Amino acid sequence: MDLQIPTINNLIDLWLTEDLGRGDLTTVLDDDEVCSAIWIAKQSGIFCSGPLVQKIFQKLDKSAQISLEVDEGGAFKSGQKVLSVTGKKSALLAGERTSLNLAMHLSGIATETKHLVSQLNGTGVRLADTRKTTPGLRLLEKYAFKCGGGMNHRMGLDDAAMLKENHIAWSRGISESVQSLRESIPWTAKIIVEAETEEQAKEAVISGADGVLLDEIPPNQLKILVPILRKLARTSSNERESRQIVLEASGIDPRKIKDYASTGVDFISSSSPITKSYWIDFSMRFNKGQ
Amino acid sequence: MDLQIPTINNLIDLWLTEDLGRGDLTTVLDDDEVCSAIWIAKQSGIFCSGPLVQKIFQKLDKSAQISLEVDEGGAFKSGQKVLSVTGKKSALLAGERTSLNLAMHLSGIATETKHLVSQLNGTGVRLADTRKTTPGLRLLEKYAFKCGGGMNHRMGLDDAAMLKENHIAWSRGISESVQSLRESIPWTAKIIVEAETEEQAKEAVISGADGVLLDEIPPNQLKILVPILRKLARTSSNERESRQIVLEASGIDPRKIKDYASTGVDFISSSSPITKSYWIDFSMRFNKGQ
Amino acid sequence: MDLQIPTINNLIDLWLTEDLGRGDLTTVLDDDEVCSAIWIAKQSGIFCSGPLVQKIFQKLDKSAQISLEVDEGGAFKSGQKVLSVTGKKSALLAGERTSLNLAMHLSGIATETKHLVSQLNGTGVRLADTRKTTPGLRLLEKYAFKCGGGMNHRMGLDDAAMLKENHIAWSRGISESVQSLRESIPWTAKIIVEAETEEQAKEAVISGADGVLLDEIPPNQLKILVPILRKLARTSSNERESRQIVLEASGIDPRKIKDYASTGVDFISSSSPITKSYWIDFSMRFNKGQ
Amino acid sequence: MDLQIPTINNLIDLWLTEDLGRGDLTTVLDDDEVCSAIWIAKQSGIFCSGPLVQKIFQKLDKSAQISLEVDEGGAFKSGQKVLSVTGKKSALLAGERTSLNLAMHLSGIATETKHLVSQLNGTGVRLADTRKTTPGLRLLEKYAFKCGGGMNHRMGLDDAAMLKENHIAWSRGISESVQSLRESIPWTAKIIVEAETEEQAKEAVISGADGVLLDEIPPNQLKILVPILRKLARTSSNERESRQIVLEASGIDPRKIKDYASTGVDFISSSSPITKSYWIDFSMRFNKGQ
Amino acid sequence: MDLQIPTINNLIDLWLTEDLGRGDLTTVLDDDEVCSAIWIAKQSGIFCSGPLVQKIFQKLDKSAQISLEVDEGGAFKSGQKVLSVTGKKSALLAGERTSLNLAMHLSGIATETKHLVSQLNGTGVRLADTRKTTPGLRLLEKYAFKCGGGMNHRMGLDDAAMLKENHIAWSRGISESVQSLRESIPWTAKIIVEAETEEQAKEAVISGADGVLLDEIPPNQLKILVPILRKLARTSSNERESRQIVLEASGIDPRKIKDYASTGVDFISSSSPITKSYWIDFSMRFNKGQ
Amino acid sequence: MDLQIPTINNLIDLWLTEDLGRGDLTTVLDDDEVCSAIWIAKQSGIFCSGPLVQKIFQKLDKSAQISLEVDEGGAFKSGQKVLSVTGKKSALLAGERTSLNLAMHLSGIATETKHLVSQLNGTGVRLADTRKTTPGLRLLEKYAFKCGGGMNHRMGLDDAAMLKENHIAWSRGISESVQSLRESIPWTAKIIVEAETEEQAKEAVISGADGVLLDEIPPNQLKILVPILRKLARTSSNERESRQIVLEASGIDPRKIKDYASTGVDFISSSSPITKSYWIDFSMRFNKGQ
Repeated sequence: MDLQIPTINNLIDLWLTEDLGRGDLTTVLDDDEVCSAIWIAKQSGIFCSGPLVQKIFQKLDKSAQISLEVDEGGAFKSGQKVLSVTGKKSALLAGERTSLNLAMHLSGIATETKHLVSQLNGTGVRLADTRKTTPGLRLLEKYAFKCGGGMNHRMGLDDAAMLKENHIAWSRGISESVQSLRESIPWTAKIIVEAETEEQAKEAVISGADGVLLDEIPPNQLKILVPILRKLARTSSNERESRQIVLEASGIDPRKIKDYASTGVDFISSSSPITKSYWIDFSMRFNKGQ
Repeated sequence: MDLQIPTINNLIDLWLTEDLGRGDLTTVLDDDEVCSAIWIAKQSGIFCSGPLVQKIFQKLDKSAQISLEVDEGGAFKSGQKVLSVTGKKSALLAGERTSLNLAMHLSGIATETKHLVSQLNGTGVRLADTRKTTPGLRLLEKYAFKCGGGMNHRMGLDDAAMLKENHIAWSRGISESVQSLRESIPWTAKIIVEAETEEQAKEAVISGADGVLLDEIPPNQLKILVPILRKLARTSSNERESRQIVLEASGIDPRKIKDYASTGVDFISSSSPITKSYWIDFSMRFNKGQ
Repeated sequence: MDLQIPTINNLIDLWLTEDLGRGDLTTVLDDDEVCSAIWIAKQSGIFCSGPLVQKIFQKLDKSAQISLEVDEGGAFKSGQKVLSVTGKKSALLAGERTSLNLAMHLSGIATETKHLVSQLNGTGVRLADTRKTTPGLRLLEKYAFKCGGGMNHRMGLDDAAMLKENHIAWSRGISESVQSLRESIPWTAKIIVEAETEEQAKEAVISGADGVLLDEIPPNQLKILVPILRKLARTSSNERESRQIVLEASGIDPRKIKDYASTGVDFISSSSPITKSYWIDFSMRFNKGQ
Repeated sequence: MDLQIPTINNLIDLWLTEDLGRGDLTTVLDDDEVCSAIWIAKQSGIFCSGPLVQKIFQKLDKSAQISLEVDEGGAFKSGQKVLSVTGKKSALLAGERTSLNLAMHLSGIATETKHLVSQLNGTGVRLADTRKTTPGLRLLEKYAFKCGGGMNHRMGLDDAAMLKENHIAWSRGISESVQSLRESIPWTAKIIVEAETEEQAKEAVISGADGVLLDEIPPNQLKILVPILRKLARTSSNERESRQIVLEASGIDPRKIKDYASTGVDFISSSSPITKSYWIDFSMRFNKGQ
Repeated sequence: MDLQIPTINNLIDLWLTEDLGRGDLTTVLDDDEVCSAIWIAKQSGIFCSGPLVQKIFQKLDKSAQISLEVDEGGAFKSGQKVLSVTGKKSALLAGERTSLNLAMHLSGIATETKHLVSQLNGTGVRLADTRKTTPGLRLLEKYAFKCGGGMNHRMGLDDAAMLKENHIAWSRGISESVQSLRESIPWTAKIIVEAETEEQAKEAVISGADGVLLDEIPPNQLKILVPILRKLARTSSNERESRQIVLEASGIDPRKIKDYASTGVDFISSSSPITKSYWIDFSMRFNKGQ
Repeated sequence: MDLQIPTINNLIDLWLTEDLGRGDLTTVLDDDEVCSAIWIAKQSGIFCSGPLVQKIFQKLDKSAQISLEVDEGGAFKSGQKVLSVTGKKSALLAGERTSLNLAMHLSGIATETKHLVSQLNGTGVRLADTRKTTPGLRLLEKYAFKCGGGMNHRMGLDDAAMLKENHIAWSRGISESVQSLRESIPWTAKIIVEAETEEQAKEAVISGADGVLLDEIPPNQLKILVPILRKLARTSSNERESRQIVLEASGIDPRKIKDYASTGVDFISSSSPITKSYWIDFSMRFNKGQ
């Protein structure tokens, strides 16, 4: 994630405003004394959000310092210290919940992603995410997905064009839609077609799409279909248009992910690390001595 | 949730910007024709987010209309139609993912909340949420918690004061902290003390706190402690300060929630409907005829 | 006031934009030389806004430094130096009017508040503010009210529920309204009932409200009513609901505030320090030598 | 005031957010039924803010309608109905305090302005405001000043250049400063010099300034000085630069405003209608029948 | 351009605020009477910005109506009426300059683009834009480029990855950089390599980049290089990676654009329609009768 | 330009967001190493935007440092180094395009302005800009106009009032309009009348306007009209209203600007440096060693 972008700064303001509202009522008890705290993992998992946690605390106290004990995307065990932070008491109290909430949520996603990705190890097939992300957190959740070893799919409706069921139903067919899109969208944007049948998949390949999303097709059928599509891609191209076709299996059952890995697809996409994951529990412990 | 507040409008802009970015690349394929679509539930649950879904689509097309087939907070079965929407094709396509993501996430929380709440039926004890909410979605997730039958706890650090472990460690004790807060915060704001031991709980009651959060105390110990605290509250009050004390069990294991219900506490708080719930799956089906 | 919250930063941007618009036309005459200036009080009063003045100047020049000669909430005499500031000439000129306007307005409120509060000294009764605040400045004016020795009432429509005349007229009575609110609002939010008659006040107490606002009831009537209400609160509570009732006199004539202090109420609320106060005059004098 | 500008819309959002925060807790008691209410003046004065009140309520309910019974800038008596409003109950309750606060504050300023302006009737001298305005409300307060019959001075540091004591002290004198400004600022921007002595005033006139602000000069001295300055303006101009000089008395005692009116100045400026005015009391009464 | 996105709404607010500032001083002369006006072209060209002009006027007056006499992207002659608008006088005056400025600027770009594009007619080669766009207007200027018949290149640093001179210099070579990017960026994002020599271009093709930007290579050299690169693309691909390579000529002299069109490249990119175009002159004439 | 104003900060955020979107995809290749780069002019011109370039890079890397080799408003030759910048690689890459785009655009305007201004040298007549500026960039383009030696006209509809053709057509004549405006606008705001005929110009002078914009009147006619208007200004003024009238020629052909300079007008206004200028080409070269 590119922490330079103004969007990140605005999101942190939004998150803090949400929790602090008109101001932490208990800050009256605290002074500007500097103190330190550590985060302890209460279960094992994959860590995600270190650079963001640092930015959150520094928004409240410019001189706050974070020291990460676990690498971004690295594994931790229950009971392990994952980071320490030093800063003004009022800043540590004010940023505690927001930073923990973010880290617990994102680490939950990274952990679940890693769980799926590890089942694809050695297959050459990669796991991709989807646009099923919590409103307001897409950048962050997709970042967590990468921390867990996954690969991002398109980020929004604007950086790649996907022809879905409805687009096709409303148009004069896949080929015309792909051609029409090629005329209108930036040439740097890929076109992907969602196919639910063999026929649609073939038409998509012939149409010159950059990728085909094979939706809810069982592994055994995919195993037969994939080589057909790849051959079609080669033969349907002319000198100037020899083309690479990316094949992706979607709408899968995560428990059967290994079956899909042997079908020859390039990617398997799954929303489950984001829509079906629990938060990882971290606890913030203040150094009483200070 | 009060949909009048400007915050809701700003959040919808944020969510749409996140998905639409520089604009839906496929809108070039669509016109301004009006079409309709329905949402089908792919599993059973408790519905949440109807008024928000309406606002999302109306942001894209002022004349879009939503018709809810399931009441907000009502139950639905797998396969059931939960709502229908009519509006411009481009608006329906542009708002599809954002509205579904929101509804699937919030309905997941409402469903999980209802699951816990139903175990408290008839006990007079209510389930409360916590500040463990996804950054940027607190208002919404707490609203979903209410839709599922739960009761909201404080909304942020500013509308009630909670003295936690660290506040107490850094101060000259519970009583002084409570008294100091009473002097400084709005008189309309309640003071709650987090207690991890019987001793702390008693001191909290005597200090005149409005509520005591009994953290990670097993049900059998709670059963003994609660009557002691209630009696203490009565006896420690003078004419002008006769007081009601709210007792809340926190840090509980959701699987044992019934054990806590019989301890005499007023509330049981749990973050699990928010931090440990899955999205409920809805599918949006466009009316092909149009 | 919690200066950490992003809201404060945004307000300062708003205030400076309002005065600077497209930029100070006279900055072309100035360079980035550092200079210093002092603020002199032209009348006596209670000082308020020091930390905000610092933030305003630092927004224009990060290295600007303020030195407060009078404590926040402290008294000053006419002719006294209240603070000194050092920074770039262009920043001092650009921030002069905005910072003075804020400090003069807030110190006027703090001064007027102290004037009323001092009449309650020794009575145990505290002065509370209201929601009658200048649009855009509620946080600041309520902060000034506290600097003058007052106590804040609820901050908005969202952190405590007050049943007013219209709510009651539109509902099936006070008791049902209170009970209905208890079911729906966060348990940490207090419920206050505005009562204009003895009958309403009694019903409010019996309903289990946390506070009763006794509106426009003369001191001699209050003196009789208050003990009745306190007794009613004790007797109407059961074991689990023994309750503290806060009684507040509102709609008072500030000139007769002492009469209200002896009625036994806990609070007297008044908007007059905010709606009926003049600005305190400060003058900013630049050090010519620099 | 130009209600078209986006700034007005943003301010209304800010004001409502301030009062509504996370949402009106009592809206749970209300439905979307339409009701009506009236505003009654509890004292006499000059009305100001009608179009803004309309925009506030319409922000909450697009179909809300206001009917003004008193013209903007018109006089009303105690007990008089100043406006009526019809809209959804929840919108009327949510907008009540914000709209009243604005109208009470602005009408207070308009009333006080009219009080001063009426003393200048028939003199040809007009009353001008200053940049002493409540942070965040300059546009509104200056608008109220106009409603009361006053004339606006510059709106900020960017639409006219005023050379004040410090600018002059830091430069090589008034003439050089004026000339330097003429070279750098838009030709459409006027240059005004603040003069505290006869000598400064003369130098200002000779320098070619568009206006001279005669600060804290007693009426009897002004009476002598003004004709001298006017003559100087005529004689110091050449064919191409024959010039009009605007003379303004500032730093006046409002109680002696009539004495200044006979000195020959064009304007008298005073911050007192803004910094030394009380709110006018309005009461909003809901129609119980609905 | 997708007019649904919140960004467009925010830009219009920004543009109007810039021109209207604290409000149009002359609106005091006008009422809310409805009037109409037309736009006349003072030179020939390609029209662009109709839907935006409509949104600008409707921001000021919801009921304003635009009627376009020339299609978006269509040609007009000097003296021709391009559109008519009806709305409140104050809205037409307030939106006049902003809407004209936008349309004149964008139509200038569309016109210049068409001029270049027309030289490529029949060649199958398309003209692409660059990231050289006026800050704050990228979406709009790229939209104008499309209106003129051009094709958009990537919209920003985030929707396609381009390896430029410095990226390569800082890395361990083109192949490693491409491979490293493939691992990290969304699979839907294309990778383009900027090549200034034949050697770099070949390495780029072999590396598996999606496109090669051939920078400042003369047409005669390109004519030889292009077939070599295309052949290399075919031969360097294996079954799974048969690939399409897009070749783009950049850094060209617009006057020699035809020479590039016959080199076999797919695209020619040029910033000149944006960086080297004049505004097209339109005049807004009000219907005096109204 | 006053860089202190929050508007500048917001614009930089807007510009960077536009280019960076969801983040620079290639930053994954870079580290936080510090490097340096220089800007080389590829043609001669007048430099403009140094302080803004510094602010852009510092937004991305607080410790970035710019060293200007050419003064703001100074001339440079083709091949000359205009500035150097040192900062983190990721910041230099992320800010490269935005800063170059701004500087190339603004320097183009400054260069074209200087070209026109140099033809007025020694005439005492100054060149003024207009409100024809690219939406979103008015402050910047007017600043560039000043860097090129021009003088700014009014900045918006709010800092000076200009009566144009339509205002006059809709009113009861010039005199009444001017008088009406004088009553309503701040006294510090000038009133300018746009005149297209001798008759209108005379009426404007008599009306007491501060300036007359003589639109599309040929030089030979202007030469006769100007002395008439100046004499009229002197004779039509009384003691209190002796007035300076500013005469401006607008709607000119830039190629004949010298002819207008000898007509006796004070200003010649032209939009051409902004609407008819090309970008100046700069190239950013990174120091490979680092």
